[in-house]
Amino acid sequence: MNSAESAPSTIIGITMGCPVGIGPEIILKFLSSGGHSGVFSPVVLGDLGILRGCARQLGISVPIVSWQPGQDVAAGAVNVLSLSKLTSGLTWGSPSRETGLAMATYIIEAVNLIEEGLLAGMVTCPISKTSLRLAGFDFPGHTEMLASQSGTDDYAMMMAGERLRVTLLTIHIPLAAVPGQIRSNEISRLIRLTALSLRRDFGIDTPRLAVAGLNPHAGESGLFGEEEIREIQPAVDQMNQEGWSVSGPLPPDTIFHRAVAGDYDAVVCMYHDQGLIPFKLLHFKDGVNVTLGLPFVRTSVDHGTAYDIAGQGKADPASLSAAFRMAVQIVMNRRNYYAS
Amino acid sequence: MNSAESAPSTIIGITMGCPVGIGPEIILKFLSSGGHSGVFSPVVLGDLGILRGCARQLGISVPIVSWQPGQDVAAGAVNVLSLSKLTSGLTWGSPSRETGLAMATYIIEAVNLIEEGLLAGMVTCPISKTSLRLAGFDFPGHTEMLASQSGTDDYAMMMAGERLRVTLLTIHIPLAAVPGQIRSNEISRLIRLTALSLRRDFGIDTPRLAVAGLNPHAGESGLFGEEEIREIQPAVDQMNQEGWSVSGPLPPDTIFHRAVAGDYDAVVCMYHDQGLIPFKLLHFKDGVNVTLGLPFVRTSVDHGTAYDIAGQGKADPASLSAAFRMAVQIVMNRRNYYAS
Repeated sequence: MNSAESAPSTIIGITMGCPVGIGPEIILKFLSSGGHSGVFSPVVLGDLGILRGCARQLGISVPIVSWQPGQDVAAGAVNVLSLSKLTSGLTWGSPSRETGLAMATYIIEAVNLIEEGLLAGMVTCPISKTSLRLAGFDFPGHTEMLASQSGTDDYAMMMAGERLRVTLLTIHIPLAAVPGQIRSNEISRLIRLTALSLRRDFGIDTPRLAVAGLNPHAGESGLFGEEEIREIQPAVDQMNQEGWSVSGPLPPDTIFHRAVAGDYDAVVCMYHDQGLIPFKLLHFKDGVNVTLGLPFVRTSVDHGTAYDIAGQGKADPASLSAAFRMAVQIVMNRRNYYAS
Repeated sequence: MNSAESAPSTIIGITMGCPVGIGPEIILKFLSSGGHSGVFSPVVLGDLGILRGCARQLGISVPIVSWQPGQDVAAGAVNVLSLSKLTSGLTWGSPSRETGLAMATYIIEAVNLIEEGLLAGMVTCPISKTSLRLAGFDFPGHTEMLASQSGTDDYAMMMAGERLRVTLLTIHIPLAAVPGQIRSNEISRLIRLTALSLRRDFGIDTPRLAVAGLNPHAGESGLFGEEEIREIQPAVDQMNQEGWSVSGPLPPDTIFHRAVAGDYDAVVCMYHDQGLIPFKLLHFKDGVNVTLGLPFVRTSVDHGTAYDIAGQGKADPASLSAAFRMAVQIVMNRRNYYAS
């Protein structure tokens, strides 16, 4: 039965990520815990052999069955759309061109199945940028690859948890390059994307946003830098004129306390550590990475492949569990949003 | 009786700070709560008339008595060394040259009395940099004024709380100016000062320090900036050679989680918000500012004059209370350290 022909899909795809990282382990731990029960069912886009081997190695006792698009999901089992056959000669923590190619296939197929209506959204496990490149895909990461596959150029990364949500204007660049990237039009774009996502994905009708300054005390009227006056304030003003509720630029050292206290639904941040320092302090284990601006729902764990502990049974599935719950919530919120 | 001639002083001076800010209010709230009881007694260096007027206005019922250096401290009362007579014509939140001069006098006299052995240390309430300048004192703040008065040029600011301690390499400069200030010899100096303070002031024999990188992921082997390789790593290596236990440069977005989890006794930070974002998230109300490197003990509240709420009864004395307790602890730890 093809569920796409009747009701919208209630299946969320989980891509296995790098086959020799902690992806297989956190998937097995998460799915064998039963913590995902509900209307939406998970299926894994990955490698049946790897998952079975990993379960055996770590003594995780759960049925692992093959699943094909359009089929029903078997209850009480790990359902796997097996897209590679990597069983022989792999070592935990040692990615290769072959694992990179397999890993990319899981992602590409997940997007295809979403576009065909056979999946409701996707949750991604961590990938290795190096092996992605070895396999011929030249993207800095998941987010850029998904944006490219879906023809999106207006996208952004949000880190979301129960206590705090942040979006980032700049990400993986040297701190010295950040001030040159503080541009009013880019800040406006990010504020708008964040506000729209809060409304559509998080069900907040009138989102309240805070925008962080770049400099100490948000520049203290130009004493410690002028980016606030020249670039950030104009963007905040413009977004308020467009009807959003946006405060800022606010002093970076107190804005997060105020957001956590409930004054704001998200904080728009100027650089990687400005947002990730407070986020990881509050959500070290259960943080979720959400890609804003894609035409489909994608959440991700907020950690890497953790090669140093891969295959050892030490990996914590908390971020995957939170990412799955959040994907379900966003799918439901979007359906409500478009239905109303 | 001059206690300096017999045993070391057990009196801690609290400077009143800006007379038209929240200093008088938090002092009265703190001292009337009885939360300071113990071997060490507080005296206020300030203005008897202002304090009495503030108590009357806010309905705080506590005896306010005059104290002179060398005298015993009256129990159950606010003991004030009155150094100004500002009672007439003042408005909360409106500092002047006159209030600036008074405010500076409290600080200068506290240092004098410490040097004479009549105070064991000092706790400072917030000052106004503007009125300090109006009064002819051209310092960016308290810390620089105290360093100058005591002839110190090797000093630093630590923010300390129950869960986290951070020291800062750079403070009130634009973010764009930070990368140019990341210099190995200055980082070494700050690591050494932090380590010595942990041992002498906080009673930690073998302090474990973590040093934050400047860039995302601490530069990821030079991919996102080279300051870690060129400047920070050499400083960390040198300090380990000097026998200290120093880790780093570590990724800024996870270092604070690890410190809070107990892996490190302090985090050496590269810039204002890198340290203050996590610190204020954890210690918004009860953070303490400690000046390292001074020849005497000085702690401070970690907030400003808060002119917008001065005289309204809304100010929270939690940071002053924490600063007093920490000053007492540091005085005792230093006496133990030098006695052993």
